[in-house]
Amino acid sequence: MILTAERIITGDGKTVLKDQAVYVAEDKIADIGDVSQLKEKYPDSPVKEYPGATLLPGLIDMHVHIGFWPSHSDAATLNDFKLAYFAADYAKRAFAKGVTTVRDVSSPKNLCVSINYAVGKGYLVAPRIITTDCAICFTGGHGWISSIEVDGPWAVRATIRDNIKRGAHWVKIMASHRTDTPEFTQEELNAAVDEAHRVGKKLAVHAGTQPSIQMAIDAGFDTIEHGTHLTIEQAKQMKEKGIVWCPTIAAYTRTYEYILENMNKKDLDATGRSFVGEQAYFKDAALAYKNNFKNLYETGVKIVVGTDVVYNNAPATPMSWEMGYMEKYGMPNLEIIKAATKSCAETLDIDHLTGEIAIGKQADILIVNGNPAEVIADIENIAEVFLGGTTVYMG
Amino acid sequence: MILTAERIITGDGKTVLKDQAVYVAEDKIADIGDVSQLKEKYPDSPVKEYPGATLLPGLIDMHVHIGFWPSHSDAATLNDFKLAYFAADYAKRAFAKGVTTVRDVSSPKNLCVSINYAVGKGYLVAPRIITTDCAICFTGGHGWISSIEVDGPWAVRATIRDNIKRGAHWVKIMASHRTDTPEFTQEELNAAVDEAHRVGKKLAVHAGTQPSIQMAIDAGFDTIEHGTHLTIEQAKQMKEKGIVWCPTIAAYTRTYEYILENMNKKDLDATGRSFVGEQAYFKDAALAYKNNFKNLYETGVKIVVGTDVVYNNAPATPMSWEMGYMEKYGMPNLEIIKAATKSCAETLDIDHLTGEIAIGKQADILIVNGNPAEVIADIENIAEVFLGGTTVYMG
Amino acid sequence: MILTAERIITGDGKTVLKDQAVYVAEDKIADIGDVSQLKEKYPDSPVKEYPGATLLPGLIDMHVHIGFWPSHSDAATLNDFKLAYFAADYAKRAFAKGVTTVRDVSSPKNLCVSINYAVGKGYLVAPRIITTDCAICFTGGHGWISSIEVDGPWAVRATIRDNIKRGAHWVKIMASHRTDTPEFTQEELNAAVDEAHRVGKKLAVHAGTQPSIQMAIDAGFDTIEHGTHLTIEQAKQMKEKGIVWCPTIAAYTRTYEYILENMNKKDLDATGRSFVGEQAYFKDAALAYKNNFKNLYETGVKIVVGTDVVYNNAPATPMSWEMGYMEKYGMPNLEIIKAATKSCAETLDIDHLTGEIAIGKQADILIVNGNPAEVIADIENIAEVFLGGTTVYMG
Amino acid sequence: MILTAERIITGDGKTVLKDQAVYVAEDKIADIGDVSQLKEKYPDSPVKEYPGATLLPGLIDMHVHIGFWPSHSDAATLNDFKLAYFAADYAKRAFAKGVTTVRDVSSPKNLCVSINYAVGKGYLVAPRIITTDCAICFTGGHGWISSIEVDGPWAVRATIRDNIKRGAHWVKIMASHRTDTPEFTQEELNAAVDEAHRVGKKLAVHAGTQPSIQMAIDAGFDTIEHGTHLTIEQAKQMKEKGIVWCPTIAAYTRTYEYILENMNKKDLDATGRSFVGEQAYFKDAALAYKNNFKNLYETGVKIVVGTDVVYNNAPATPMSWEMGYMEKYGMPNLEIIKAATKSCAETLDIDHLTGEIAIGKQADILIVNGNPAEVIADIENIAEVFLGGTTVYMG
Repeated sequence: MILTAERIITGDGKTVLKDQAVYVAEDKIADIGDVSQLKEKYPDSPVKEYPGATLLPGLIDMHVHIGFWPSHSDAATLNDFKLAYFAADYAKRAFAKGVTTVRDVSSPKNLCVSINYAVGKGYLVAPRIITTDCAICFTGGHGWISSIEVDGPWAVRATIRDNIKRGAHWVKIMASHRTDTPEFTQEELNAAVDEAHRVGKKLAVHAGTQPSIQMAIDAGFDTIEHGTHLTIEQAKQMKEKGIVWCPTIAAYTRTYEYILENMNKKDLDATGRSFVGEQAYFKDAALAYKNNFKNLYETGVKIVVGTDVVYNNAPATPMSWEMGYMEKYGMPNLEIIKAATKSCAETLDIDHLTGEIAIGKQADILIVNGNPAEVIADIENIAEVFLGGTTVYMG
Repeated sequence: MILTAERIITGDGKTVLKDQAVYVAEDKIADIGDVSQLKEKYPDSPVKEYPGATLLPGLIDMHVHIGFWPSHSDAATLNDFKLAYFAADYAKRAFAKGVTTVRDVSSPKNLCVSINYAVGKGYLVAPRIITTDCAICFTGGHGWISSIEVDGPWAVRATIRDNIKRGAHWVKIMASHRTDTPEFTQEELNAAVDEAHRVGKKLAVHAGTQPSIQMAIDAGFDTIEHGTHLTIEQAKQMKEKGIVWCPTIAAYTRTYEYILENMNKKDLDATGRSFVGEQAYFKDAALAYKNNFKNLYETGVKIVVGTDVVYNNAPATPMSWEMGYMEKYGMPNLEIIKAATKSCAETLDIDHLTGEIAIGKQADILIVNGNPAEVIADIENIAEVFLGGTTVYMG
Repeated sequence: MILTAERIITGDGKTVLKDQAVYVAEDKIADIGDVSQLKEKYPDSPVKEYPGATLLPGLIDMHVHIGFWPSHSDAATLNDFKLAYFAADYAKRAFAKGVTTVRDVSSPKNLCVSINYAVGKGYLVAPRIITTDCAICFTGGHGWISSIEVDGPWAVRATIRDNIKRGAHWVKIMASHRTDTPEFTQEELNAAVDEAHRVGKKLAVHAGTQPSIQMAIDAGFDTIEHGTHLTIEQAKQMKEKGIVWCPTIAAYTRTYEYILENMNKKDLDATGRSFVGEQAYFKDAALAYKNNFKNLYETGVKIVVGTDVVYNNAPATPMSWEMGYMEKYGMPNLEIIKAATKSCAETLDIDHLTGEIAIGKQADILIVNGNPAEVIADIENIAEVFLGGTTVYMG
Repeated sequence: MILTAERIITGDGKTVLKDQAVYVAEDKIADIGDVSQLKEKYPDSPVKEYPGATLLPGLIDMHVHIGFWPSHSDAATLNDFKLAYFAADYAKRAFAKGVTTVRDVSSPKNLCVSINYAVGKGYLVAPRIITTDCAICFTGGHGWISSIEVDGPWAVRATIRDNIKRGAHWVKIMASHRTDTPEFTQEELNAAVDEAHRVGKKLAVHAGTQPSIQMAIDAGFDTIEHGTHLTIEQAKQMKEKGIVWCPTIAAYTRTYEYILENMNKKDLDATGRSFVGEQAYFKDAALAYKNNFKNLYETGVKIVVGTDVVYNNAPATPMSWEMGYMEKYGMPNLEIIKAATKSCAETLDIDHLTGEIAIGKQADILIVNGNPAEVIADIENIAEVFLGGTTVYMG
């Protein structure tokens, strides 16, 4: 199959190819080249043409919760069967946002590994899922209702081992709620990082406030999630230590809008009430991103796109929201696209597999009408989405 | 939408319409009539033509186990999430056999009601499921590994109440294994029937041998499953009492073939080993169906089609197998089709809804190439399957 | 203390005393007589005068659920401590409706006996509570979420014994939901009645539909709660057998109004959703009371007033609602007052203690402005409420 | 509302205002000034006059156990409902002692937070409660029967986290019983202090003997409870480190009297038996307070009043007992009153809210007949008690 579009954004943050096409053989990008030459080279191959469109790598959402149930309208009567179908639907809706890979940074125990199992068996089609299995927090910590609560460095290590035993690829640690109170001690954070790294796993840490952000940097986590109140100095430290920043601007900014819309409603779920109850924090957070993002970006810290929008009836993986804020706050579009593709794949250690339009990669391809290199919102004008060369969504 | 085919088998056991078409509006069969007249009457309606094909009601499989896991190759490591996806895949594969409704006569607790929930939420597309929730057996009874084991008339009643509370439409009782030893006592069987009937629910009973078949007839169950060693005399009693027979010929006959193929293999699952261990029974069973089916049919006992094939990697709802045996053993094809459609719907008390090509019913429609009125195997030459007017499978 | 009002309604269904006063000594009604004579007889006694008012027995609500939590807005986070305070507040609000005694026909296990304990210790002031402790239903039966689910005659007996052991005065059995399906079998109902009666306890039965009402009459319960679809013939049977009817007209009629007001709201609790989901039943129920109450009353069946209004934020013990419907549907006012006082006390076997303005009874006294003998709504124009001679509410 | 009394003791340890009045608007002290000027300034305000009386801040009892049950005569049959009512009664009785705020330093899990919830819902009126939720002791430690027993620094931290998660404002650690044997190790005590402080919570420690008192000082707890055998040197260390002393003289001195009265009785509860069994300790303790209190006070260590009297039928918050001992042992009356008001509020970090008669504070006001600045026992000659401007007790 030959795919032709007006332009190809390869995902490396700078390259836009014109008059080029992609040749897909089986599940891989087998060739890239001049349109007419490719047609000549593979004369029997069907050709799909997308005039005026842009071809780019399938997006990677670095911060999702596929099975987030506390804000679900039926939370009280869910069981694992119902949750399984809810999650499968979420996964399917991710395709409709151009997403072909996600990093799930906390869902119910065993859910994401079971989706991967079901995909492997052919029961289900879903984006590639890199999973932390269930997040780990201290007793009463952020998200305790849907996390594993443990205390002490050895309990943290044991829980990490158990998550890995059950199939987790990454580890997720909660280090702060929405105050300046840290949650785990430095000793526990250090133990988490040591345990995961020594068995070859990376860790994401929820750290939005001080001193938790600094504690997370000192501990040496691999990605800092949110980092809402990150300072320039800390961003430089992160760059130096190779720590990646997943800001989730939309999660705070859109959630603040959601709060304003819903604050007087009576039918809010517990998650919604928690958001409304902390509107002051969300307001400050939205402002912090607005004021600081540009400067933080300019430190050169590696940035990846994650959505993390979990209020009731929120869309799945709304990448255009997060990428839109990045554009609005001054990051160049090609850099944003890199942050949603190649940078993610590198961070996840799957860049040999996906995240870029390059020969030999899996054919995880997004085709959108318009040109996101100029207008990032075009990322949602989806024409077609391929996962490993197979169509998984048509606009 | 107007659907035209060479012939329409309505499902009543006798009618074959020629040069007629079906007009589907929303989810219902809104009109049936002469092709050209219908086109004139609904000039804006799209027309789908299936030359040479047969249009008939979507099939109803009266005996399935959507979530049957003991013979699953990963049985030891399944969890409810994995099982959910396995079951969703089974449901989808049923469409590929022309099945639009099933009666599930035992799956893990809550599974089938959760599938129905997920369908209602739009997470999933699946056949209509009438469910007994989990079957009830005596301690150590047939299928105990995947049933609820209870003892005593009040425990039986309590379990029936609990299944109904959790959403069961029917009740399934296990009355025999593969020997002449009955399982539940007559008192327990009577209690089951009384309990279900007094709250308006019907019961299916697994009874393959004597004296269990007679005990089941005496208790007054609504459908007898298998009835492998049913006598003519008993079939007459069933007819008299309005008890329906779901013979599941294939389950025994094909399973016997499966035994012969697999008896020397070492990697059999527990279900497979149980089959092989009872090859003598399966041989006799296959023979019993072969020898007696015609005579039993001729008593006028109401017969419905159920598949119940659960060995590892068995196809989902292999209706053509069961219907093929019925054809081979002498039942007229239109009668077989009725037994797989209208008779099922009547038994399930959903004949106001489905099971027949008739104005006002849901557009649960199967279109097959060829003519199953002559060659039953054509039932599997599927062109298209509609559930409530929506395409759910294309051949 | 001498209490004088314009009139005294004694509660016997016919007597209205003029120019008479009540003399309260300690906790009892020690004398009744001509105002001036009483003042002369007890010259040192303080006199409380209520010109234009009516003095009558404190009301008895025969159907309350003091600790009903499923419709509570914080249902998900309640614990027994919170529930205890919620219930104490409910009890206090009952005084504001003129209620000095209630029969609680299901609250969480141990709650009502603990309130009685607390009253005995002087921790709390609350109406007298005659309690069934927690109601008993079959698995999945009416109100299962807040009842004890048991199955089988011996389990029913054991649960009755356990409730009595923990302090229950009465027994409450659930016999129907809101359909024509009976719940417990006749055998279980008979066992319940036998068990309670042989140890000297009476039973209330929730029976709103057929055949449950007939089953309840046949079993010999002491009070039938709701009896929504009671027939004339059955009312006559009840009269003959001495079975009392507690119709709870308001529970259905006002709840139907609540449904109409709330059916489109999204923030309903589970109880609210259950009401809305069964609006057809509530509509029919309201109509049944409207059409039949007069005729049923005229059979002579003994009627008592119970409120049973449990939707979220419903008032506690809204006696004026229930008594208002009885007035509207044709029952004479003095009879209604008897049904809310003396008839209740007789049914509860506490008529030696309360329920009537008579010498020797506890001074459970309600003083209202106006004349409920003419306008039943005056029952809520409360001037003062005494429990055992102590003021518990002032209007 | 204008409140006038002969004198106002503001609670700062020195000020006594004459001819002044307090103006209460809504729940706050809105003005203080010359009586006649205030009346002129707020001409529409009602005036409550207490001639000869003293107006002072509502008292704060820093050491109570609202739900202490082991010495309760019905301990064996209590349940959470009964305990809830017992506790509500205790809270109400505190008002009768002039107490408007308490620090509860151990009650059953969730009890105090549930009282606060009930107050917020309007179910209950109770003093402000600052709660540690349930105290933490080592296995078999002091008060283990009504504490949470844990061992090891990480288990201590986990339990602190869990208490905070459930709503605790403070942390209570048990460090000694009534011997010279310390309970928790220094490592565990240090862990407790570090854990609470790093998340912004303060800690109270039960330490009556050596070396526990020194260990508690070294660990850096915020208040030392009892400190029965505290030395001058240690009191100076406490002053230096800002550690507050809550001596609970009465708890030992009156309990010793209780022992002498009850030592030959047979029906003592477990708490009473424990007291009697340790009469030697109580005798020494009473003597230690008698001999040392004056000198300890003179070191300048900050002292607060807490009662902690928990034997069966002991009065709730008997502040006059504790304050009486302080007077008897040589502390100036205005200082004692400060120790029962402003010093407590400062220690609890609620001095912006209460603890002093000052403009802007909550109107938590105690009015007593007589002059406690001269006779401390007058603190119990209560005329009226206001909580946030509302009368909660009248003498």
